[in-house]
Amino acid sequence: MLIKPEEYLERLKSSRRVVYVFGRRVEDFTSHPNIRPIINSFMETYRLALMDKYKGILTAVNEEGEEINRFLHVAKSPEDLVKRVEMMRIVNSRIGTCNYRCTGHDAINALYPVTYEIDEKYGTEYHRRFRRFLREAKRNDYAVTGAMTDVKGDRARRPSEQEDPDLYLRVVEERRNGIVVRGAKIHQSGAVAADYIIVIPTRAMRPEEAQWSVSFAVPGDSKGLIYVHQWNSYEAKFLLREEHGLDIDIGNLRYGIRGTGMVIFNDVFVPWDNVFMYGETEFTGRLIEYFSAHHRGGGAGCKAGFGDVLIGAAALAATYEGVEKAGHIRNKLAYMSYLNEKAYSTGLAAAYKGVRTASGSYIPDPLLSDVAKLAAAEGFPEMLKITADIAGGLAVTGPSELDLRNPEVGKLVKKYLKTRADVDVEDRLRVYRLIENWVASPHMVGAIQGGGPPQTQLIGILRKTDFARKMELAKRIAGIE
Amino acid sequence: MLIKPEEYLERLKSSRRVVYVFGRRVEDFTSHPNIRPIINSFMETYRLALMDKYKGILTAVNEEGEEINRFLHVAKSPEDLVKRVEMMRIVNSRIGTCNYRCTGHDAINALYPVTYEIDEKYGTEYHRRFRRFLREAKRNDYAVTGAMTDVKGDRARRPSEQEDPDLYLRVVEERRNGIVVRGAKIHQSGAVAADYIIVIPTRAMRPEEAQWSVSFAVPGDSKGLIYVHQWNSYEAKFLLREEHGLDIDIGNLRYGIRGTGMVIFNDVFVPWDNVFMYGETEFTGRLIEYFSAHHRGGGAGCKAGFGDVLIGAAALAATYEGVEKAGHIRNKLAYMSYLNEKAYSTGLAAAYKGVRTASGSYIPDPLLSDVAKLAAAEGFPEMLKITADIAGGLAVTGPSELDLRNPEVGKLVKKYLKTRADVDVEDRLRVYRLIENWVASPHMVGAIQGGGPPQTQLIGILRKTDFARKMELAKRIAGIE
Amino acid sequence: MLIKPEEYLERLKSSRRVVYVFGRRVEDFTSHPNIRPIINSFMETYRLALMDKYKGILTAVNEEGEEINRFLHVAKSPEDLVKRVEMMRIVNSRIGTCNYRCTGHDAINALYPVTYEIDEKYGTEYHRRFRRFLREAKRNDYAVTGAMTDVKGDRARRPSEQEDPDLYLRVVEERRNGIVVRGAKIHQSGAVAADYIIVIPTRAMRPEEAQWSVSFAVPGDSKGLIYVHQWNSYEAKFLLREEHGLDIDIGNLRYGIRGTGMVIFNDVFVPWDNVFMYGETEFTGRLIEYFSAHHRGGGAGCKAGFGDVLIGAAALAATYEGVEKAGHIRNKLAYMSYLNEKAYSTGLAAAYKGVRTASGSYIPDPLLSDVAKLAAAEGFPEMLKITADIAGGLAVTGPSELDLRNPEVGKLVKKYLKTRADVDVEDRLRVYRLIENWVASPHMVGAIQGGGPPQTQLIGILRKTDFARKMELAKRIAGIE
Amino acid sequence: MLIKPEEYLERLKSSRRVVYVFGRRVEDFTSHPNIRPIINSFMETYRLALMDKYKGILTAVNEEGEEINRFLHVAKSPEDLVKRVEMMRIVNSRIGTCNYRCTGHDAINALYPVTYEIDEKYGTEYHRRFRRFLREAKRNDYAVTGAMTDVKGDRARRPSEQEDPDLYLRVVEERRNGIVVRGAKIHQSGAVAADYIIVIPTRAMRPEEAQWSVSFAVPGDSKGLIYVHQWNSYEAKFLLREEHGLDIDIGNLRYGIRGTGMVIFNDVFVPWDNVFMYGETEFTGRLIEYFSAHHRGGGAGCKAGFGDVLIGAAALAATYEGVEKAGHIRNKLAYMSYLNEKAYSTGLAAAYKGVRTASGSYIPDPLLSDVAKLAAAEGFPEMLKITADIAGGLAVTGPSELDLRNPEVGKLVKKYLKTRADVDVEDRLRVYRLIENWVASPHMVGAIQGGGPPQTQLIGILRKTDFARKMELAKRIAGIE
Repeated sequence: MLIKPEEYLERLKSSRRVVYVFGRRVEDFTSHPNIRPIINSFMETYRLALMDKYKGILTAVNEEGEEINRFLHVAKSPEDLVKRVEMMRIVNSRIGTCNYRCTGHDAINALYPVTYEIDEKYGTEYHRRFRRFLREAKRNDYAVTGAMTDVKGDRARRPSEQEDPDLYLRVVEERRNGIVVRGAKIHQSGAVAADYIIVIPTRAMRPEEAQWSVSFAVPGDSKGLIYVHQWNSYEAKFLLREEHGLDIDIGNLRYGIRGTGMVIFNDVFVPWDNVFMYGETEFTGRLIEYFSAHHRGGGAGCKAGFGDVLIGAAALAATYEGVEKAGHIRNKLAYMSYLNEKAYSTGLAAAYKGVRTASGSYIPDPLLSDVAKLAAAEGFPEMLKITADIAGGLAVTGPSELDLRNPEVGKLVKKYLKTRADVDVEDRLRVYRLIENWVASPHMVGAIQGGGPPQTQLIGILRKTDFARKMELAKRIAGIE
Repeated sequence: MLIKPEEYLERLKSSRRVVYVFGRRVEDFTSHPNIRPIINSFMETYRLALMDKYKGILTAVNEEGEEINRFLHVAKSPEDLVKRVEMMRIVNSRIGTCNYRCTGHDAINALYPVTYEIDEKYGTEYHRRFRRFLREAKRNDYAVTGAMTDVKGDRARRPSEQEDPDLYLRVVEERRNGIVVRGAKIHQSGAVAADYIIVIPTRAMRPEEAQWSVSFAVPGDSKGLIYVHQWNSYEAKFLLREEHGLDIDIGNLRYGIRGTGMVIFNDVFVPWDNVFMYGETEFTGRLIEYFSAHHRGGGAGCKAGFGDVLIGAAALAATYEGVEKAGHIRNKLAYMSYLNEKAYSTGLAAAYKGVRTASGSYIPDPLLSDVAKLAAAEGFPEMLKITADIAGGLAVTGPSELDLRNPEVGKLVKKYLKTRADVDVEDRLRVYRLIENWVASPHMVGAIQGGGPPQTQLIGILRKTDFARKMELAKRIAGIE
Repeated sequence: MLIKPEEYLERLKSSRRVVYVFGRRVEDFTSHPNIRPIINSFMETYRLALMDKYKGILTAVNEEGEEINRFLHVAKSPEDLVKRVEMMRIVNSRIGTCNYRCTGHDAINALYPVTYEIDEKYGTEYHRRFRRFLREAKRNDYAVTGAMTDVKGDRARRPSEQEDPDLYLRVVEERRNGIVVRGAKIHQSGAVAADYIIVIPTRAMRPEEAQWSVSFAVPGDSKGLIYVHQWNSYEAKFLLREEHGLDIDIGNLRYGIRGTGMVIFNDVFVPWDNVFMYGETEFTGRLIEYFSAHHRGGGAGCKAGFGDVLIGAAALAATYEGVEKAGHIRNKLAYMSYLNEKAYSTGLAAAYKGVRTASGSYIPDPLLSDVAKLAAAEGFPEMLKITADIAGGLAVTGPSELDLRNPEVGKLVKKYLKTRADVDVEDRLRVYRLIENWVASPHMVGAIQGGGPPQTQLIGILRKTDFARKMELAKRIAGIE
Repeated sequence: MLIKPEEYLERLKSSRRVVYVFGRRVEDFTSHPNIRPIINSFMETYRLALMDKYKGILTAVNEEGEEINRFLHVAKSPEDLVKRVEMMRIVNSRIGTCNYRCTGHDAINALYPVTYEIDEKYGTEYHRRFRRFLREAKRNDYAVTGAMTDVKGDRARRPSEQEDPDLYLRVVEERRNGIVVRGAKIHQSGAVAADYIIVIPTRAMRPEEAQWSVSFAVPGDSKGLIYVHQWNSYEAKFLLREEHGLDIDIGNLRYGIRGTGMVIFNDVFVPWDNVFMYGETEFTGRLIEYFSAHHRGGGAGCKAGFGDVLIGAAALAATYEGVEKAGHIRNKLAYMSYLNEKAYSTGLAAAYKGVRTASGSYIPDPLLSDVAKLAAAEGFPEMLKITADIAGGLAVTGPSELDLRNPEVGKLVKKYLKTRADVDVEDRLRVYRLIENWVASPHMVGAIQGGGPPQTQLIGILRKTDFARKMELAKRIAGIE
């Protein structure tokens, strides 16, 4: 049930996919410099799960008593939820980027209870189907991602009001043996290298929006699936990598930044066995709530893992320059640690206060999960600012490793980047590139938008806070009857 | 083991104490308008512990299987630590001020493991003494407070360097049957109405500072103890209360603001049985660390309870004015809830990640406890600001209830303070007074300073963060060997 | 044209007013302990204007070439606006509280151009009337306040929709020789001791709201005017002052905190000569905009003056404890200075960028004035927090001066509050009381609400920002045609 | 005296320079894709100066009555200082990046008064030399940059304590006709395309540090000068530009991000006529103070110009998605405008309160300049966060323009990125790329580090704040004698 990273890679290599990177159809996506870091991250989740020291954290024991990767585990206790947060921190502090299996975990943990609840109400068989799918996923230790965010078109209009109804993914055809879906999901981190993608709706639907109320799983190499990789300046850097033999310049050489993109469902067929919701509009809200609770709560571990790397990088930069003992630097490092542990703590609390669903599974406390996401969305950019403050301008204005290696000018560049006698200039540059990777990269946007923009958490908190009770407490003390 | 609030009150009434309020020696301190709110808070901790709905939260079962007030309980598991945080929130959301027994809990939970550890090293009998004292405290359900903060004199000097050695509490005489101590402790919330006061040092001592390395318990009515009640504008208000029959004007009529003050140990005798440390200078640091971990972690529950009242008050003020549906008001209320739950979560996490001491007791995770305190020190003043924003100026510029009752002008005042038809003007005024009680009162200082000023937490976080490991993580990703 | 402070006082003493403080009608309001500090502040504005060193700053030369108090001056250049901000800082840094004449200045500077503009449109004679009134005010060097904030009833309803139409001040009767007005204004700082009160509407009115669209001036002792002084804990302290001979305990002994209250217009007659707007509903918005621009811009000087005192107090507290050289304390003091000068700068910029009105007078840049107010509303509470951090808990938990003077316990209290040998304990206590006066007082609410709650500034900024132009700039750079 | 942009370009084209980009010696640096945007920015400063609408703002009249580019103007009044801030906002809001001539202005305005003061003391002829140089610069309308930041080696050591004395730029040889200098300056924005570079020391020097106390000007194509262009992910993007015909993908196509890099002075000869300080160690501090005052104060205009573009971009992104009317979006846009105008105001105030030097020139108020820089360092990253919040994830996860143009998948990509019917998908993508250019780029680091890291401003504020006077104010109010 726990496969080796190489097994995952082999499986992927035998898979044919339609992948576009920077305007070109990619032949062998598994070896493309912009895609390969994603695969490296996935592989690390397999590798760590096999290590003794992470047994019980990166792994879990499922209902049948088998050891599985925790990313595929349905949480059956608050302790499971806590371990998931801890797993996120461990993995992400080692790869310094997205692990890509987190959304799959969240989709699994959202569908497990919701399919149960739909069946309870309608006598459908979604839960059985889903468990069968899940059993299969565990048996093969599939890399699974969850796809939620639709492209959404004009935000001032509902799905049914869009000029193009496909702007929210929907069922365009019902067949005897399944359905055909059309639409596009954006921000699909890692989907290009997933064994399976689980699709859920992007928002709570209304009764008349049945065609958009659909959830299902498809293999990553399904016919009709098209992957359009993201483009941004970091992708440009990766594109140059092989041609120029870059190493230092990359920052996070092995795992890169978050590799995400658009996944187009260009009339993809899904057999009934993999359909886990279709038309039960009133359950879409709950599905999203469960997904969000897992994703936002788990995000605390994700960002804390990033924070560990960031704090370490800032401390290294200060040390390499000889300012690590200055009072204001120490205060700033301590403050970074405060911000990091604070956001992490909210995720732990959300997990620890997790609530049982009717199916017997657990979801993190929904209010505290929103709080955890917002804490990260506020705290992480603050950490980036402090890092940018500590590290100084060279993190973005320093020369390339190619300058260092240039036979004419390389020695001079090295001479002038020297700080302490015991610090290698290349190491110094590596730290700056790692810091650039955080402070001048998509990561700030990721921290703010991942799990939904902050206003969605505020709305969630507004709904989930018991203001009536608090007003009663205030009245009692104020002497109002 | 669980006494009634009235029993505590009776016990207190039979106690003779030297108490000064606003420059005058107070005859019957239990009925003084500035002291009585303190006693009311203490009583509420007794009352709630007897309620079925709080059984297991406000109460605990001790080693002998007896049900006791949790404030006297030595935590024997992370769950105990969590319940303590929850207890704090429950109690403080009902009284809207200090419960006064929290420091006692923390002193007990600090001395229990430290006395054990001292005995382990020196073969002393502190732990046995302390357990005997504790058994007695539980048997009588004593109200116990912990006294830490010395007056400290010139902060640029150590205890032994002060012109007056008494500026840190110390042993001035050893007798056959005990010791005589001299000094003064400030910020002693509730001490005036405690059955027992436990004293611990205010800072980590050096080998040459043995006379200041002392910990002990004394009855609140010990000979030589002098209580000097605090003076501030709120105390002025309370002083006027009875003479003018104030009710609305007070804000938190029953429990008031935090009642604190100076306790002078004017050569107080302590029998050996109540001495729990004397001269073991190297253990002072750990004693303070344990105390701080409990106090700072527990403070999250304290401030969250306050926050519940504050959010409720802000929501009421908005509702009474008819603006509760405005988008920006709703966002602000949601943000307050975010701040409140965030700080609370850090306390929960500190508890949940509590660590076992050699004695078998548990302390909250020291790093996360510092984080929790700092989160409250930052978040709570922010909540005060938002409340001041939502509530508007009348919270501090409104008239007195005496103006409302004035036969000449009362009707006009009422006429002009009317808002919605269904809102009673007196209720509106009550909410404003309650809000004044928070936003224009000692509470902001309390949130920042209680548990030590923020810089002490930053220093704690600096020490407790494993920067070396984080630097390793950064090096690994950056490719530095 | 510049009178002595004593002349103002004499004039006030001969004035009969209906004043209620804490539920009682006050006989001689000029000697009441809660009112007297207000009068002291007013007097200081007269005293400073006579000093050579403030000539040209606290004074101005009016159109007739006479030297007048700048508080009565109509700004005729950006330099006038700048000097007004500087004047505010100077005065308020000396009294550490409201100077009370600022709103009068703002009402004068709002009515001067608006009456001109109404006359331009309607051929009315408001401007002539207003100039005549103003000439008289200057001739007598009147203390003038401006009254804007109505009680407003149910905020979800417009003036005409309230159950009680008087909840916005209005004209209830037109007579041959004038009008009769009814209503109440709240947050009326200093009005009780003003020679004249200028009334303006509280919001932009609609065509059907003519009866509420009224502006006028009335003598402070007009028949039908009723003053209800504010009540809060600080007022309680002042009430105790004389009975107990308090001095240290007060904090700001001479000038106190902001003395504000409700002014009820219980059918007050206003002769036509003092009516400056009546029924020109479409000008109410502009009147408020001009008033707000002056008031919000000028507030930067007000808060900067407060900030000077606050920074000084924090620096003193640190010095008295011997921590003034600690790195983190120095950083915090520097940060306070940053916050203070930043908010001040926005006020200066608003003044410097002041715009000419059709009447030839100048108003501060309306956008930058909103910015200035918001900068103070954010920065000042931040300064309070830092002060509370630096000063420590004794600012609110310290003893009373009466405790110091108590023959039994006074010596002990002094002994234990001693810090550095060269610091007098009484001085230390004075600084704490001064700090309490800021950090545990109505001042935070004042900084947030004074000049309108923050959301009103955000709305103002939204309206006054040229987003279309900024979008053009963005389009140009992005290459969008 | 005002040349055309093309004249500058021609001059540059005829200049031979040693330039390395990404490890390669560049043949024609003026046409290199990573250098050309820098030149475009310079050219814009020439172009705008010739436009009537900016006459008097982008231009100034010098002592001889000739119209010159304001970037070469010595400020002779506060109004000059104000116009400089306004010029910065205008230029930078049109180019959305560094204008590169700002540091030259600051070096000129620092050397003008300091050379005067040195001559006053020592009877040297620096001022005359400098004026001659300046006259020449104006006559040719030179593009001048200022070079301050040394590489600094081990920050824990002074210049003379470094293992390699060249880590601070210094004089290595004195010749009859001039000096030879060696060292390297980093963060040299635009230097590669400057006509002249003015060098000043990086810190206040001590008496024994005479060889490092040197200031001079050199032509940009001096023998021994080596330019090593920066490397970061944005440079990678620019590198790909021509090969792939990128347009939309670039973001700020014409002017790019800040083009900076290292300038190595590999034994550069400077004739005495261009040496403006050498060995007068006690004047290094003042030189830096003057430079910093100009640079930090002027930076307010720089960041405000950026802010205009950023606000516009955020407003466009919201509009293109159809959410521009949502209450929380409007509040966020207003808040961005607040932050932008606040920082701008501090710069205006620093200018308006500018102080006269002995030479007759003016420098911005040094305290307020530090405040202005810090306000931008705090405010600008906050604006970036809000933009990232408003814009959403597509700013970094969206596809490339090459994907749009791909014949197979282009139509699908366009279909799914469609929002409102009236919004072109390409325009939408352009806005996202422009936003990426801000929120996932070196700009955040630039705002924090440009003008020196925040701690240097805090130290400056600490030194320049008159704490003694503030303590006196506090004492006066507290009644301390």
